[in-house]
Amino acid sequence: MRFTSEQRLDDGVLEREFTLGEIPGILWTSGSAPAPLILIGHNGGLHKRESRLVARARHSAAEYGYAVAAIDHPGHGERPRSAVDDQARADLRRAMQAGEPVDEIFESFIVPLVEKAVPEWRTTLDALLSLPEIGGPVGYSGMTAIGIRLAVVEPRIAAAGFFAGGFVPRAQREEARQVTIPLQFLLQWDDEGNDRQLALDLFDAFGTKEKTLHANMGGHAGTPWFEVDDGNRFFARHLK
Amino acid sequence: MRFTSEQRLDDGVLEREFTLGEIPGILWTSGSAPAPLILIGHNGGLHKRESRLVARARHSAAEYGYAVAAIDHPGHGERPRSAVDDQARADLRRAMQAGEPVDEIFESFIVPLVEKAVPEWRTTLDALLSLPEIGGPVGYSGMTAIGIRLAVVEPRIAAAGFFAGGFVPRAQREEARQVTIPLQFLLQWDDEGNDRQLALDLFDAFGTKEKTLHANMGGHAGTPWFEVDDGNRFFARHLK
Repeated sequence: MRFTSEQRLDDGVLEREFTLGEIPGILWTSGSAPAPLILIGHNGGLHKRESRLVARARHSAAEYGYAVAAIDHPGHGERPRSAVDDQARADLRRAMQAGEPVDEIFESFIVPLVEKAVPEWRTTLDALLSLPEIGGPVGYSGMTAIGIRLAVVEPRIAAAGFFAGGFVPRAQREEARQVTIPLQFLLQWDDEGNDRQLALDLFDAFGTKEKTLHANMGGHAGTPWFEVDDGNRFFARHLK
Repeated sequence: MRFTSEQRLDDGVLEREFTLGEIPGILWTSGSAPAPLILIGHNGGLHKRESRLVARARHSAAEYGYAVAAIDHPGHGERPRSAVDDQARADLRRAMQAGEPVDEIFESFIVPLVEKAVPEWRTTLDALLSLPEIGGPVGYSGMTAIGIRLAVVEPRIAAAGFFAGGFVPRAQREEARQVTIPLQFLLQWDDEGNDRQLALDLFDAFGTKEKTLHANMGGHAGTPWFEVDDGNRFFARHLK
């Protein structure tokens, strides 16, 4: 892990960009004592520098003292896109404009993303946990598909907050039963691109008994800010 | 309004029992400055002295500074039961034991309860708001059927937390569309006596855009304690 930039922000948070092999990431910390760590897994198409993600990360570090990390998943952010990625995105746009079904296109796109991103998160976790300012335990917050697989294969993930608004491949819908860590599941009730009943079924399927659903009105990007605090308090109950 | 007892509890909360005409109630306060008020409407069969209700009320007063009031609804707690109440309860027990449908029995029981309890809450509100230690605004927390009607007819109710586990008559399911105040709706996912889909449909029906659903695992009485804090923080966003 190599830190490539370092900046002290006006909220006192130290923001450091890093690379780990091909993986570019950002680490936000607010102190030097070993802090619990939250990994933020952003959704398809997004970037580790996406403004809401950065606002959430800084708030979690500044107000709650967490160390927070985000990486660019393969084909996302500043990472090169493969021809296959570009083709899938073009197919997706065309199918959406034509009002055609998109599930199989999403499967072709998200399944390999999960396969590649989860080992990268585990490698990143190894590196982050070797830093003196990060003490664990570890929470994951963000994209559901990657989060399910990560929660199933990575025993160091102690609690997770999943955002329901995103495609979840069949394989991860099956794996949901194996998720046994405490979970907070965040649903936008009127998310135009995502089926509400599928999300409720997924909430039902998670294997953990300590799961809470938070549903709010509005579309995909309309999650109210108070859910950021609710998420941090959820982690405070389980990461300390 | 006549205070009939007064006790300073070990958490510093002042607990006063009162009567207002036939209505017996309890008021919990933690200071002398005018505080926002939360009305707790307990569910069918329960009592203003029910232990979880009292624990919630004291916590809201001690930790958040709210004034909190509960009353015994007609036929509940220390109030006399009518022969009609007794008959309905006997019918309900018999039908449940026989595995027969209970909706019509509940309708015959809850509809008159709502009709009687809501004017009593408004009378109680008049009296409470005349006390110097209560400043408003006012929130309602508890039984959904009574809460819907109260939110529709009483403009002084500024925000409400409803518990989904309880029978809601057809009339209040219709009235739900007229509820336009901020709302937090608390659902037990595996509530044995209440239909989950009906509860989700009701959440969908509420007319307000500022509504949040919190669903947790477990049966009717299994709501986790952290929801008490979530409820208080919800009120803090809307009653201040």
